[in-house]
Amino acid sequence: MMDFPLTLNWLRHRVQREFGATEVVTRRPDGRVLTHTYRDIALRGTLLAQRLIQAGLRPGERVATLMWNHHAHLEAYLGVPAAGGVLHTLNHRLSQDDLVYIMNHAGDRMLLIDDTLLSLYEALKDRLPMLEQVVVFNFSGAGCPEGYADHDSWISQTDAALALPEIAENDAASLCYTGGSTGRPKGVLYSHRALVMHAFCQAMVDGYGVGRADTVLGVVPMFHGNGWGLPFSAILTGARLVLPGPRVDADSLLELIEAYGVTLSAGVPTVWLKLVNALEKKSPSWRPARRLRIVTGGAAPPESLFARLARFGIDLRQGWGMTETASVITLSAPDDPGASESALADEDRNWRYRQGKPMPIVDVRIATDGRELPADGVSAGEVQVRGVCVTDSYYAQHLPERWTDDGWLRTGDIGTRDAHGNLQILERTEDMIKSGGEWIIPQELENAILDYPGIQECTVIAVPHDKWGERPVALVVEARGAALDTAALLRHLAGRFAKWQLPDAVLALPEIPRTAVGKVARRELRRTYAHLLGATH
Amino acid sequence: MMDFPLTLNWLRHRVQREFGATEVVTRRPDGRVLTHTYRDIALRGTLLAQRLIQAGLRPGERVATLMWNHHAHLEAYLGVPAAGGVLHTLNHRLSQDDLVYIMNHAGDRMLLIDDTLLSLYEALKDRLPMLEQVVVFNFSGAGCPEGYADHDSWISQTDAALALPEIAENDAASLCYTGGSTGRPKGVLYSHRALVMHAFCQAMVDGYGVGRADTVLGVVPMFHGNGWGLPFSAILTGARLVLPGPRVDADSLLELIEAYGVTLSAGVPTVWLKLVNALEKKSPSWRPARRLRIVTGGAAPPESLFARLARFGIDLRQGWGMTETASVITLSAPDDPGASESALADEDRNWRYRQGKPMPIVDVRIATDGRELPADGVSAGEVQVRGVCVTDSYYAQHLPERWTDDGWLRTGDIGTRDAHGNLQILERTEDMIKSGGEWIIPQELENAILDYPGIQECTVIAVPHDKWGERPVALVVEARGAALDTAALLRHLAGRFAKWQLPDAVLALPEIPRTAVGKVARRELRRTYAHLLGATH
Repeated sequence: MMDFPLTLNWLRHRVQREFGATEVVTRRPDGRVLTHTYRDIALRGTLLAQRLIQAGLRPGERVATLMWNHHAHLEAYLGVPAAGGVLHTLNHRLSQDDLVYIMNHAGDRMLLIDDTLLSLYEALKDRLPMLEQVVVFNFSGAGCPEGYADHDSWISQTDAALALPEIAENDAASLCYTGGSTGRPKGVLYSHRALVMHAFCQAMVDGYGVGRADTVLGVVPMFHGNGWGLPFSAILTGARLVLPGPRVDADSLLELIEAYGVTLSAGVPTVWLKLVNALEKKSPSWRPARRLRIVTGGAAPPESLFARLARFGIDLRQGWGMTETASVITLSAPDDPGASESALADEDRNWRYRQGKPMPIVDVRIATDGRELPADGVSAGEVQVRGVCVTDSYYAQHLPERWTDDGWLRTGDIGTRDAHGNLQILERTEDMIKSGGEWIIPQELENAILDYPGIQECTVIAVPHDKWGERPVALVVEARGAALDTAALLRHLAGRFAKWQLPDAVLALPEIPRTAVGKVARRELRRTYAHLLGATH
Repeated sequence: MMDFPLTLNWLRHRVQREFGATEVVTRRPDGRVLTHTYRDIALRGTLLAQRLIQAGLRPGERVATLMWNHHAHLEAYLGVPAAGGVLHTLNHRLSQDDLVYIMNHAGDRMLLIDDTLLSLYEALKDRLPMLEQVVVFNFSGAGCPEGYADHDSWISQTDAALALPEIAENDAASLCYTGGSTGRPKGVLYSHRALVMHAFCQAMVDGYGVGRADTVLGVVPMFHGNGWGLPFSAILTGARLVLPGPRVDADSLLELIEAYGVTLSAGVPTVWLKLVNALEKKSPSWRPARRLRIVTGGAAPPESLFARLARFGIDLRQGWGMTETASVITLSAPDDPGASESALADEDRNWRYRQGKPMPIVDVRIATDGRELPADGVSAGEVQVRGVCVTDSYYAQHLPERWTDDGWLRTGDIGTRDAHGNLQILERTEDMIKSGGEWIIPQELENAILDYPGIQECTVIAVPHDKWGERPVALVVEARGAALDTAALLRHLAGRFAKWQLPDAVLALPEIPRTAVGKVARRELRRTYAHLLGATH
């Protein structure tokens, strides 16, 4: 067979050749919409690649982006790897300390940045001694600020005859740092091969099912886990892509869904909670023009979200993955694939509440003490994974303890698999609550509390306790106008849990603090409430 | 990222782990049905691999099969490559001379054969000096004939502790010889990588769409172009597989479709022509229990077949590929992917009559004299392809003229591409008719003739002519009871074609002779009728 490497270059070539006329829609911060074609994107990606090489990019060198979801970021997705570089997407919601650490650790010499994020760079620049070139994309439409290279002019100053390097499929194409829930952020390099194969999985009927007929709304930030892969799978399949820029509030997303007949999106549960809240309040009879599928991940969605979205004809699926696995690598799917949708609605829908079945480029197991546990839905142990898009190391950091002796990644998550192959993530090891030697699973309490009227958000954390070691405490956000009766809430829970599993306290907060990647800031909460139950250590 | 090779071993591991309980149904020649699970298939594949190694199989060595579509053949699909061997599927419909040539050219030392095909081997065996081991699969149920190793006993005599070799994804997994329409049959080696990536393409929404919810009827002979890939894509996705053995007549296929709720199949047009004939005659109100998609290829189907099958709720798509491309590499799909099926029915359905759009592991171009022609639907040239599943050489045969200087396979087919990306195969170069310096395309005449009432099959060939060089002659098979009026047929054609394009003669035959792979035997027909028009050379 021919030596035909699976690279992003091949995807760039293909999208230009086969889907050149298909649209990529970008919404600017001012709400105005820009339309490009994949031909534009591919050609501008090539220009960017040539310009980077001309500017001195070395093979394998990182090029940082501080950008929202828009066409120029998509061009960087293709153009930086085409130059032999590594696209280093930066999360602008991280703390300044983390950003400085990450950029210096990655050795970023070049930065592509939106004009609307420039103040962030200016606050950091004195601490970034390696950074040499800053190119500003005029996303606001206000024009490039004085003293910076303007992205569009910069990429036009290329030698169009400059040949791009040969790329091998195992070459690194992009780099992302973990959110850093424990310790310093860690970098993960993604190969061309991993990203392309991940896109193939998403295009499978049993994956996201991305196809040429789809209009994909790219809600997951492109600085976060490769936008969960959707930009690449849209390019692979020629799906139309809608990039919302910074506006991902419910009303803005609904406008785009309606205007472009969106059929597929992905994002953290909070986004879809807000969307369904808005629909229920304002448009109870709303229906999408075409079938709308949504993949959610990053945190377990409340179980009620599935039924609430289903009432609007929206099909919600769960995915699970982590920075170390390129993006989502399991996806929920019916246990009986032959059952019709209507039959499914009446049946036990346990599969919806689990994190799904592994994509065919990864292998998932539950293990404890080096021994694989049975797939019985009960035996809980560490989730371990291996596969095409699973990293075997961290970038410039030696942490061999994160892999088993036989080469599986230790995810640090606790979970089960059931006989249908569904993975269920119970909790991160560090988030489980150990009370009197027994485990309490925060998520189960959270789901029950969210069922109670007037509760909008809920997080259950472990709080130190002198006698029991740890005890659960529930932190809740009330719906506007609700007057929470905590005693009644506890009575509601008492019907479902053993007495020792009930929270010792229920605290109402105005909001639940979250990390830069949108997850509940559990470590911070544990620190804040460490002495709530009077523990002396 | 981890080094995680894409091999059939991975598929075997995965199907056992994730879809172990899913059924593989085999129909024996006596009509009885055997049911296995993928777990059985994978385990027996492993036993076969161990037994082959124990029997002295060397890495990369070919193991021949002369088998119908059944579970033991599927086990060999997985087991031979797992042993580091190369599965060499033999087409038992080839001439004895071709079979002897192929087996000796491939150096087959071991043969797995159905008891029902044993007489074929016995007729050849004196001319197969290299063959050492013949293992007979008792497919008929009559018991293994005296003097041969019985497949089931043979694979049970293994050392279960025997470790299987490490396989690299570029290692050869299978070998298939071309039908040999010109010259000697030529062998094509398929790598693990090519077969796995092909399966991924088939599992894509825009591919065959094979998924876990499917029940796949494996009609394409497994000795022919990897059964067009369906065995591997069913294994990749965990689709249920129904293997019909030797019975692929319309009634037998309908029985299986009904009994198992088949949702997907593939096969040459003749199979589906017979099926629709049977349905129209016997069950005009028949409908499949679940949505039924069929992929056809190997020859252009008559245009009327699409509408005839659609009346029974069967969706027919065209694929195109060749031995040199592992199997189907283009697949027809609507030009406007957003259009609903009902809208499509009313629209210009030209896309249905073309050979489709390339899968995302291949690149297709139309070229003449080293220059790529525009995708305008008109400019005809040689179809050239490259990609993951396209061969760069023939097995033990040096034919560099089959590739262009820049590395594309020259298919020898003439075709066009239109602005929607549809490939249209006009004809093999050698099948076009050159009359008075102008080209006549046999397929266009054939389609028009098939529209005429009472015509069941039709082939138009070139016949030598002293004045014009070549002239078209139509060979037709009449429907039972039809009394063909050839003058009326010619009048029907006169409305659609220029006078010089009309056939010089219309001959009715009892049947159209076909080659061993089911294609019209055009070369043979050209020889038979070489002097029909009185040409003197």
